[in-house]
Amino acid sequence: MIDESILAARCQGMGHSAIREILKILSQPGMISLAGGMPAPEAFPLELIGELSAMVLEKYGSGALQYSTTEGFAPLREQLAIYLEGLSVTVPPEQVLITSGSQGLLDGIGKILISPGDKVVVESPTYLGAIQAFAPYGPEYLEVETDSAGIIPEALEAILADNRVKFIYLVPTFQNPTGRTLTLQRRHQVAELLKKYNTLLVEDDPYSALRFSGEPLPPICSLAPELVVYAGTFSKVLAPGLRVGFCTAPEVIQKWLVMAKQGVDLHTSTFNQALAAEYLAGGHLQAQLPKIIALYRPRQQAMLAAMRKRFPDCLHWAEPAGGMFIWVEGPPGSDMEAVYHQAVKENVAFVPGQFFYARPGGGRHTLRLNFTVVDEPTIERAIGLLGDILARELA
Amino acid sequence: MIDESILAARCQGMGHSAIREILKILSQPGMISLAGGMPAPEAFPLELIGELSAMVLEKYGSGALQYSTTEGFAPLREQLAIYLEGLSVTVPPEQVLITSGSQGLLDGIGKILISPGDKVVVESPTYLGAIQAFAPYGPEYLEVETDSAGIIPEALEAILADNRVKFIYLVPTFQNPTGRTLTLQRRHQVAELLKKYNTLLVEDDPYSALRFSGEPLPPICSLAPELVVYAGTFSKVLAPGLRVGFCTAPEVIQKWLVMAKQGVDLHTSTFNQALAAEYLAGGHLQAQLPKIIALYRPRQQAMLAAMRKRFPDCLHWAEPAGGMFIWVEGPPGSDMEAVYHQAVKENVAFVPGQFFYARPGGGRHTLRLNFTVVDEPTIERAIGLLGDILARELA
Repeated sequence: MIDESILAARCQGMGHSAIREILKILSQPGMISLAGGMPAPEAFPLELIGELSAMVLEKYGSGALQYSTTEGFAPLREQLAIYLEGLSVTVPPEQVLITSGSQGLLDGIGKILISPGDKVVVESPTYLGAIQAFAPYGPEYLEVETDSAGIIPEALEAILADNRVKFIYLVPTFQNPTGRTLTLQRRHQVAELLKKYNTLLVEDDPYSALRFSGEPLPPICSLAPELVVYAGTFSKVLAPGLRVGFCTAPEVIQKWLVMAKQGVDLHTSTFNQALAAEYLAGGHLQAQLPKIIALYRPRQQAMLAAMRKRFPDCLHWAEPAGGMFIWVEGPPGSDMEAVYHQAVKENVAFVPGQFFYARPGGGRHTLRLNFTVVDEPTIERAIGLLGDILARELA
Repeated sequence: MIDESILAARCQGMGHSAIREILKILSQPGMISLAGGMPAPEAFPLELIGELSAMVLEKYGSGALQYSTTEGFAPLREQLAIYLEGLSVTVPPEQVLITSGSQGLLDGIGKILISPGDKVVVESPTYLGAIQAFAPYGPEYLEVETDSAGIIPEALEAILADNRVKFIYLVPTFQNPTGRTLTLQRRHQVAELLKKYNTLLVEDDPYSALRFSGEPLPPICSLAPELVVYAGTFSKVLAPGLRVGFCTAPEVIQKWLVMAKQGVDLHTSTFNQALAAEYLAGGHLQAQLPKIIALYRPRQQAMLAAMRKRFPDCLHWAEPAGGMFIWVEGPPGSDMEAVYHQAVKENVAFVPGQFFYARPGGGRHTLRLNFTVVDEPTIERAIGLLGDILARELA
């Protein structure tokens, strides 16, 4: 009989059962989910992926199905070096690593950098998947205060001045969960702070291509490349089921990420890497992005319009210029988990914001809404229902 | 400037630079490699995979490209429950987990079970990939003595009686690196020892389907299912580039493997899981296995025949009934790393056996030969060259 006494000590940090219970409810029949973070299935280029599959087997033959190097499939690394150049991140193909989704990079970063008790700086709130990836390695989190323009540089500097920090983890563009984007000026300030304190930044950038309006901002990586691990993914711009992400990193980090990945999964699926390579090489990303945005922008607009009409006045939110989420703040003292339990009774789900805080206790008055998987009429109906519940619960 | 001072303490166990240097040489032009552990590229059913790709997109649509559950794609878990039943391992689909290759399972096992200093029992020699997966978690290895029939149960019992062991890791069939297979009697003995000492076994079984002669043996899992994590993979029977493996495990282990995997890669590629599901559902595995064996058996026979003719008398080896490797033992005091350096000068590579020992110092007189990727005439030439070098170096 094997029981929990067999577990390693590090499992203590890996529970997160509350959010698991919450997400289980989503599979109830009839549930309208504004809770997830999935791309719209209509956004997947099914036919193109069929064509690319045939092309990859024709072009690379058995090479697309064989073991490949841990660093990644060479044609994909070449295409990504070109792609990154377009973001003002100039690296040779040999400095691009392929990961199994950006989750794979986050696990690798945790494994090679975090000794138990090491201090990791995160936004408040931050991406839950990063907390889950780092948790087994035993970090101590330091949370940086944020406002509508992302983290506040002065708050970051106060932390860096007082603490020996292992690294900073940020999602600077259309952040999950807040949808917030760090301004250009703040990107420069963060880059300067990295240099001043010789501190490593992990810049997670899954959403920046999903921009509905305004001008793209340069990654912080382009401002301090020697101090930044920049991570991207095909999950939001091709298909998450392929599990292909990528990163570029300072040399010593890259070397050890490869060493760690060799023990974790040897390498990311060669076949899927070849599909991603041909997706880029054929110019399909450029063709596909406008289609994805044409799907998401009206959904976001429908959600915002319905919120303005149906949400009580005591709630506040910003209107992100892209991404997949809208972040809502209720009045101080409000409890969005209680609202959640009422909402699921009426078949509408969202994620209470408290689950996105690295240190328990924060954000009970907040919630995250996703607008990518549900069509406009359904969004309007769900927001209407939710508005009524909020009015009732917060009265 | 980021230097190695940023690394977590656990990186100390993750080096293995010697084997890395050895493997780098393999990409030299003209090198005949008997060193790797790759399937023959001719063994990949390219045309079938093209057909299955189209079929999967037709059948599952966007479901093949979307995020899926960490546990695995339901149709694949169903097919694998049927497959496992054929191995006398009776589990419901919900008790089958999908992993990113069997490497993914090994990392998960290390993460959830090994606290630094925990004792892990391995064969001597053992699979290098397992050592690499476990290393970051800080195990202390206890090596069980082996003979031509695998581990010696009495030696295992001596260890279990004297030590608090976290788990035992075995490759009982056509082991990597030795090609050895644990006899039926010993499987029963091991199962009894697991029960007697309430000890967990991780049974890694990538090669058992590659049987050239003789009758299949039951997995140890079928003899003590409540104490065994049984791991399999599609890498040797479909294509390793898809990175799809699977396991079944006692309930508490399964629960925590899922928790760990969620942080590591969220889930294994949905598309590739769907391909594997259709490969099984369509009966293609049964059709493909005889083709793979028809490729490997003559290569193994050619290698053994050439060894008998060309290797000096002071070397010994067994003739495995399947798998991918032949293990060679030289006279005590011989140094196969020295032989290796001579051999690569003449464009023949193998792996010196010392790299397969969990504790440094063992196996300097041993070497591993792989027979799956090179055709018969090349095998004969390579073994001839190697025989001359061995005769010279061991004289």
